[in-house]
Amino acid sequence: MNATIYRSAINIAALAGLYLSIAMLIPAFVDLVYGHPDWKVFAVSAFLTGGLCLLTVAATRAGPPPFNRKMGFLLVNLLWFVASLVGTVPFWLSSLDLDFAEALFEGVSAITTTGSTVIVGLDNAPPGILVWRSLLHWLGGIGIVALGLFVMPYLRVGGMSFFKMESSDTTDKPFARIVTFTRAFVFVYVLFTLVCAVTYGALGMNRFDAINHAMSTIATGGFSTHDASFGHYNSLPLLWAASFFMTISSLPFSIMIVLVVRGRLDTLRDPQIIVFLSYLSAFAIAATLYQRLVNGTDMYAALAHSFFTVSSILSTTGFASDDYMLWGEFIVALAFAATFMGGCSGSTAGGMKAYRFIIIFKSIRAGLYGLLYPNAVYSVRYGTTVVDADLQRAVFLFFSTFMVIWAAGSLVMGALGYDMVTAASAVATALANVGAGLGPIIGPAGNFSTLSDPALYLLSLMMLLGRLEVLTLLVILTPVFWKN
Amino acid sequence: MNATIYRSAINIAALAGLYLSIAMLIPAFVDLVYGHPDWKVFAVSAFLTGGLCLLTVAATRAGPPPFNRKMGFLLVNLLWFVASLVGTVPFWLSSLDLDFAEALFEGVSAITTTGSTVIVGLDNAPPGILVWRSLLHWLGGIGIVALGLFVMPYLRVGGMSFFKMESSDTTDKPFARIVTFTRAFVFVYVLFTLVCAVTYGALGMNRFDAINHAMSTIATGGFSTHDASFGHYNSLPLLWAASFFMTISSLPFSIMIVLVVRGRLDTLRDPQIIVFLSYLSAFAIAATLYQRLVNGTDMYAALAHSFFTVSSILSTTGFASDDYMLWGEFIVALAFAATFMGGCSGSTAGGMKAYRFIIIFKSIRAGLYGLLYPNAVYSVRYGTTVVDADLQRAVFLFFSTFMVIWAAGSLVMGALGYDMVTAASAVATALANVGAGLGPIIGPAGNFSTLSDPALYLLSLMMLLGRLEVLTLLVILTPVFWKN
Repeated sequence: MNATIYRSAINIAALAGLYLSIAMLIPAFVDLVYGHPDWKVFAVSAFLTGGLCLLTVAATRAGPPPFNRKMGFLLVNLLWFVASLVGTVPFWLSSLDLDFAEALFEGVSAITTTGSTVIVGLDNAPPGILVWRSLLHWLGGIGIVALGLFVMPYLRVGGMSFFKMESSDTTDKPFARIVTFTRAFVFVYVLFTLVCAVTYGALGMNRFDAINHAMSTIATGGFSTHDASFGHYNSLPLLWAASFFMTISSLPFSIMIVLVVRGRLDTLRDPQIIVFLSYLSAFAIAATLYQRLVNGTDMYAALAHSFFTVSSILSTTGFASDDYMLWGEFIVALAFAATFMGGCSGSTAGGMKAYRFIIIFKSIRAGLYGLLYPNAVYSVRYGTTVVDADLQRAVFLFFSTFMVIWAAGSLVMGALGYDMVTAASAVATALANVGAGLGPIIGPAGNFSTLSDPALYLLSLMMLLGRLEVLTLLVILTPVFWKN
Repeated sequence: MNATIYRSAINIAALAGLYLSIAMLIPAFVDLVYGHPDWKVFAVSAFLTGGLCLLTVAATRAGPPPFNRKMGFLLVNLLWFVASLVGTVPFWLSSLDLDFAEALFEGVSAITTTGSTVIVGLDNAPPGILVWRSLLHWLGGIGIVALGLFVMPYLRVGGMSFFKMESSDTTDKPFARIVTFTRAFVFVYVLFTLVCAVTYGALGMNRFDAINHAMSTIATGGFSTHDASFGHYNSLPLLWAASFFMTISSLPFSIMIVLVVRGRLDTLRDPQIIVFLSYLSAFAIAATLYQRLVNGTDMYAALAHSFFTVSSILSTTGFASDDYMLWGEFIVALAFAATFMGGCSGSTAGGMKAYRFIIIFKSIRAGLYGLLYPNAVYSVRYGTTVVDADLQRAVFLFFSTFMVIWAAGSLVMGALGYDMVTAASAVATALANVGAGLGPIIGPAGNFSTLSDPALYLLSLMMLLGRLEVLTLLVILTPVFWKN
């Protein structure tokens, strides 16, 4: 039984790796068009990884795969490990002179849509590499939405079973057939990317930048084609456009689909959307007021930069428009808090996510009532649905594990010699798949390139943990998982 | 019904305030003996607060008090509010020139056994004030142990009901009668304080310092009679003695009593004691190795300072032997993590406490197993007792609320203009009742005196929240509490 599971999981993951190898022909083509010699890097990488994956696929051919929870957990992890490794190869072989730890960090950061980078001099980097970074973001985004919709709810990770219940409870069943839904999802995802690219182009980006930033935006990734990120363009309209697209990319894609395909605006009245947009607005307005009143920034600039920065962090994208470390301690604290929070479930956004905060806050309130009147029953509701005790516990379990892993990771970063702000923000930004840290080293004006190899390995692990909702990766590290 | 509850609770709290006012005669006497004019401050304070409390007691005289949960929560909060305010008056009226926010901060810090101070120049401070600070620590320590043993388990705050179950399950019932137990507890508390004072005296402290530091140590408070705290004495044996007494003061007093009264060493085999001593040793050894290998510190000094610092923070005392901000980033990160952890339940220590970590870690493990095999039952055990789902949820509730309050408090500190390290460590050290923060302002070499009044009010609230296990204070802030 176990052997069949391992064989099937490896087979499917290798197949995914094969597709990703074929996708390397796109940056190869781009380098050829721009006349950059690194097209050979992509050709060689595609040949090597593709060949290896093809051999693995052939060697592990089997009947229809068994589907159980063990297979689910193993497959999800393997898919992300293989995609990370395949994505890493071109970075490692490229003319950028990255060592393996750096290349792996860049690859994991790309496929997990984190967007932290170790590459300095993006403005003059080979065009193929820039396209490969955006493309990995974009494909990773598809992967995480698919995972969040079709797999995670059934594995019941961190309270995500909630969204299974919800979709099977709903009276009109737009997702009755996965194929129809997948087609609709890819259609909307491509549509958003195109509209975003056209908008960026209309507001002044050249075609290359517009396409790359659009892929990075819709995947809430954060890689830019410039070291200064959005600061490069010095354009408030561009900041507003990016804020808009980052925000809608943090909303549940299932709802975006109903909105786009059926034109139903009422679906936006979802509890997590309301809460997410509320805290986004509250944070952005607080930052604007602080900038306006304390720093005396121009009103239009304060508004645009605040909404851009807050939606960049909350959507877990991680673009920067300016060095907000210089805006004052309040903004730094706000950015740090926002790093943990994240967007909505069923989107490409990472972090703890709005629905968990809803459940945690309502559970705390119910818990306080329960302390007063232990025999009364205070039900916790998400929208109209009752959140039972098991689901509350699942959410608390996720929250506690997230915080414990964050604390442990920060401690290791401290042992590696980094100051508290760098250590704590690096691990938080990796776990939440945001991409931007705090402090002079990895802050919005900094870069992850100066971190030591052990730190880069640690943060790569943290990015994978975060992308897989922490528990999914921890499950396969338990001894019981590997017992027969 | 509600009127009776309010009346009875005010009556009992005012009575406690009256006793505390009478206790002011001790520092008045000390100032008289040392010939310091501030004896009048204590005489006036005792007269004012004592008179006010006496009037309140008389005005609220009633029959036997009603005992229900509402009364329990109200009384616990009122006791701590009244004790804080009464304790504050001498600081406010003294010759130290403290404004009200500073005096309140000092009073709350004293009675909650936190030990953060706003007083600069302790070495030349009036002896009566120094005694008042230690005495408030010492009495606050008695209060919190009594609360943790007799009240909190019945209010079921943050999983503390566990210790109710445990003591009623035990075959030999040393706590069958509260009076016997209270007498035994006060005996052991006084005994520990005396042995500690004699030890400190034998190792070189003068009588005044020995008594004050002993009261501060056994209450895991942290106030010293010198600005340099234990650094003043420059004595490794004193550091070892303090480490020992701080550590035993973080162990459950119920177990200390059985140990002292019956000489039974086997009671030390308590799960929370084992875990607490394990992480204390692990942290101290890690700090020693770091100091020895990275900083090249002398082995004996590294051992003594590391054990002292780690036990000072984990016991939530907050004495300092040196500016450990200078020992390296790893030690800073270690100190920050330790700030949250705390000692054992049923002691004077604050923080999240060892038994909660045991339950959280075992719940996470059970949760991971449950993800793999949802139909299997993985029971979480504390020692030999099964921790049911309700109790797990209570512990998660405490943990989540603690973290949310910490984040919110740090954000407000950020808005008040403090840098991230100062903001986050100030709120953490207040919530966990430790006393020592991090960074140049409130770090081991610093002092809370330069903080603004709004920051001092915020931190006073945080100290009270922490001392009352967060939820106890939050309960009385819910609207439902004040409904009839």
